[in-house]
Amino acid sequence: MTEMNEPTRRELFSLIGKAGGAIAMYQAMTALGHAAETQFTGPPKLSPARKGGSVLVLGAGLAGMVAAYELSRAGYKVTVLEYQDRPGGRNYSVRGGDKIVEVGGVTQTVGFAPGNYLNPGPWRIPHHHRSLLYYCRLFGVELEPFIQMNHNSFVHNSKAFGGKPQRYKELAVDFKGHVSDLLGKALNAGALDARVGKEDKEKLLEALRSWGVLDKDMAYTSSLRVSGQRGYDKAPGGGVDGAPTPSKINSLSDILDARVWDQMSFYFNYVMQTTMFQPKGGMDMIGKAFAKQLGKAIRLNTKVTKVAQDDTGVTASWEDVVTGQKSETKADWCVCTIPLPVANQLDLQVSPALKAAMKAVGYSTQCKIGLEMRSRFWEENYSIYGGHSFTDQTIGLISYPNNNMHKDGPAVLLGAFASDARGLMLAGMTPEQRIETALAQGSVFHPEEYRREFLNGASVAWSRIPWILGCTSRWTEENRSAHYQNLVALDGRFVLAGEHASYYGGWMEGSLLSGLDAITRIHQRANVA
Amino acid sequence: MTEMNEPTRRELFSLIGKAGGAIAMYQAMTALGHAAETQFTGPPKLSPARKGGSVLVLGAGLAGMVAAYELSRAGYKVTVLEYQDRPGGRNYSVRGGDKIVEVGGVTQTVGFAPGNYLNPGPWRIPHHHRSLLYYCRLFGVELEPFIQMNHNSFVHNSKAFGGKPQRYKELAVDFKGHVSDLLGKALNAGALDARVGKEDKEKLLEALRSWGVLDKDMAYTSSLRVSGQRGYDKAPGGGVDGAPTPSKINSLSDILDARVWDQMSFYFNYVMQTTMFQPKGGMDMIGKAFAKQLGKAIRLNTKVTKVAQDDTGVTASWEDVVTGQKSETKADWCVCTIPLPVANQLDLQVSPALKAAMKAVGYSTQCKIGLEMRSRFWEENYSIYGGHSFTDQTIGLISYPNNNMHKDGPAVLLGAFASDARGLMLAGMTPEQRIETALAQGSVFHPEEYRREFLNGASVAWSRIPWILGCTSRWTEENRSAHYQNLVALDGRFVLAGEHASYYGGWMEGSLLSGLDAITRIHQRANVA
Repeated sequence: MTEMNEPTRRELFSLIGKAGGAIAMYQAMTALGHAAETQFTGPPKLSPARKGGSVLVLGAGLAGMVAAYELSRAGYKVTVLEYQDRPGGRNYSVRGGDKIVEVGGVTQTVGFAPGNYLNPGPWRIPHHHRSLLYYCRLFGVELEPFIQMNHNSFVHNSKAFGGKPQRYKELAVDFKGHVSDLLGKALNAGALDARVGKEDKEKLLEALRSWGVLDKDMAYTSSLRVSGQRGYDKAPGGGVDGAPTPSKINSLSDILDARVWDQMSFYFNYVMQTTMFQPKGGMDMIGKAFAKQLGKAIRLNTKVTKVAQDDTGVTASWEDVVTGQKSETKADWCVCTIPLPVANQLDLQVSPALKAAMKAVGYSTQCKIGLEMRSRFWEENYSIYGGHSFTDQTIGLISYPNNNMHKDGPAVLLGAFASDARGLMLAGMTPEQRIETALAQGSVFHPEEYRREFLNGASVAWSRIPWILGCTSRWTEENRSAHYQNLVALDGRFVLAGEHASYYGGWMEGSLLSGLDAITRIHQRANVA
Repeated sequence: MTEMNEPTRRELFSLIGKAGGAIAMYQAMTALGHAAETQFTGPPKLSPARKGGSVLVLGAGLAGMVAAYELSRAGYKVTVLEYQDRPGGRNYSVRGGDKIVEVGGVTQTVGFAPGNYLNPGPWRIPHHHRSLLYYCRLFGVELEPFIQMNHNSFVHNSKAFGGKPQRYKELAVDFKGHVSDLLGKALNAGALDARVGKEDKEKLLEALRSWGVLDKDMAYTSSLRVSGQRGYDKAPGGGVDGAPTPSKINSLSDILDARVWDQMSFYFNYVMQTTMFQPKGGMDMIGKAFAKQLGKAIRLNTKVTKVAQDDTGVTASWEDVVTGQKSETKADWCVCTIPLPVANQLDLQVSPALKAAMKAVGYSTQCKIGLEMRSRFWEENYSIYGGHSFTDQTIGLISYPNNNMHKDGPAVLLGAFASDARGLMLAGMTPEQRIETALAQGSVFHPEEYRREFLNGASVAWSRIPWILGCTSRWTEENRSAHYQNLVALDGRFVLAGEHASYYGGWMEGSLLSGLDAITRIHQRANVA
């Protein structure tokens, strides 16, 4: 039985798993048509730990906490050492009164109203991230839908439509209309007869006529039918003046300039597909829920400086960053989840291969800016509820909050989500300059309201956050092939875990699956050692 | 000032409206780029009614109640006569203990657990239905997201894939992949050079490569990149065995057999686009909120049999269906919102043109079936949260509940939403046969769980519901042109309102806009009469 529910299909798999091993289970799940979406098949079934067995976990992010939680359940004595004054790591929400300290000492004090927050790290949960959803349910973390795709939000490309943002629906409907129109013409001209058989050709033409909303001549033209997808010039109404009038379609050239296929592709990403979720009240509800389970096993404000190991165990040297106290903690095994840019600065007694792997992984440079606005003008004035308006400016996008829709009072809008060079550009600014940039650029979408409704803002430029010095791991194919197995391998009594030790870099699911895999291997080794 | 919030853009428009009339307002809104989505520009600003002015409203659905509410605000004495024992009309939710009575007397007593419900009529609210959202907010009706598009739900076509349902994401990604592949080949062969200029051609090829996830040879082939959209054979994970393996794409022929463009088009319908909403606790929360405002102005259990009118006013004859009492109600004006199949049976003193119009409109035949299931197995076992799985069987689709996601306990799944001939087919069955049909056909999506988890069910076949005898109005283009203006015109002191008197047939927004338009015209006439 799982902890969560009445007998489920998942349990059946668990029984198959016990009987026939992981491969049999995987095959059984695949046969039933729903396994491919996750490597999570329930929490690890660790046999009881040897009496007195102990594990030291470095870092109280999700990878560290899931490792500590499951090891504790199996009977290990677990100690978690965490540098910060809070658990969670990048599972993090900033709220009014919080301080954000950057490398060099620049400090922001967040001014959000009570209840408002910014999730600077992870902010959305795919429906197929089953281990994360499992622990949310197990620990009673309430979830609400995260609206990802929004047909009514804007796409802004400074080189298209004179720099005027367009509604996503208009561009996307026009894109598929023109694509259908052109492919229909090529098919009807016989240009693809060598590739598409007669029967398929007829069906494909029917498909294009329907999907592209083409007219009787198989052309994409302005009409009420097309407006039934892209919106009307005058919407349908009631009574005497209820008749709608059609909107005017854009030309293929204009649509191509807008590059709407970037957004159309984005929404099709497996990790971005509907239905997504967020915890009610802030992403850090998840980290807090884990931490509550672990209680005093987590030691906060603890800066690890060195990890030594020999045949009998591991020893971590650390310093309390509040009291200055220096000490050591010993255990049989060590799971290190410290982000690599920081871990690389520690004195770790590990193999050269692991050290090389740790140094090989780059980190991304995201910057997020939260803007607290006096009212939810995007809802009332623009009919935009959740989702993102995209731009080719530095801010990348603005994203509309998914909590408290239709309510009054101030709300925090995500005013920037910038990666790579754009993230670094924002990181190079003062916090005040970042806010000004976000206001200036975001005004393109909501020119009347954006500055008028602005109350205050906060930014997290991950490359300047001292406890990580980057946002998420960035593996290249080349690095994967040269270093990944060395990075995740058990190195004596030491093993790494975290999103960087997964194929789901930057996702909480990667952290959890990595943590579960690491402890499963430690446990196997511990029980034969 | 609106009742709802601080000064808003909408108010500005209201002021412009007062100064320059509706056309100036419409132009101002269009210039700001967000008017086209609605004809609603705030509640009607009716000047005070003449002292003693009175209006009789027939039917306490949304059209009747919004008319009554706004007329009362303007100072009219309003009486609403309603046939049923509850207000709301098709704004309706059935709950445990409710009785559903059909023509001929067949009666179901609903067995749902407390808190569970089926919305037999309207069930989703588009973000651009501004009048409905306005009154929800004004009356404090809490809304939650209605997940419409779900990449992970199923598409079932009995003639494709051997009748095995496929995930929408797999079919849709394959469809756009093959379309991109083919159009790319046609472009590269020069087949469209006469239509697409050189610069656009390069951009379009770039678009197809990206949007279609084509390989370096511009072909749509199985790969990890493609799996990053359509899902993996083995999903990415963490640690040693974290590497994903790609899924295998389907052929163009298979995709065409599945007709996935039907679903791809459906999600692009303006009225179906994200973000949509539903009231927390059931759709009838809206009708109840209106009724609360109207209090004793609504007389329930009142069957109108005749409406007469002369130069001085209207007189409705009615019978109390509980006590048998017969009586009359007189007023200066009458707004009739009774659905046409019933209204056509009354003795109405109206013009032949209006009578002809009322008889010209057809009605749809939807049937919905709610199935209460012991657990939310679609979430836990299939990672499906909200949205619909479509089928070419009689049931049309099954739809997953948007309330209480991730929670334990029984939940009501929409087991059928059948229209036209399919709706009539279900209507012709006994309630027990409908449930059996829904279970047999819905099992195609969830073969293991569907019957095992089933607890009880309820169906509403609108063509057999005595107070309406149909679901929603169905105008043809021909009928619109011949009869619509006659249907909505003020006929002496009598005017029709309801979704049938709008261009938003079947949507609550149509009822509200129609009601608002009807009373605005009555008020104008009353103040000059």
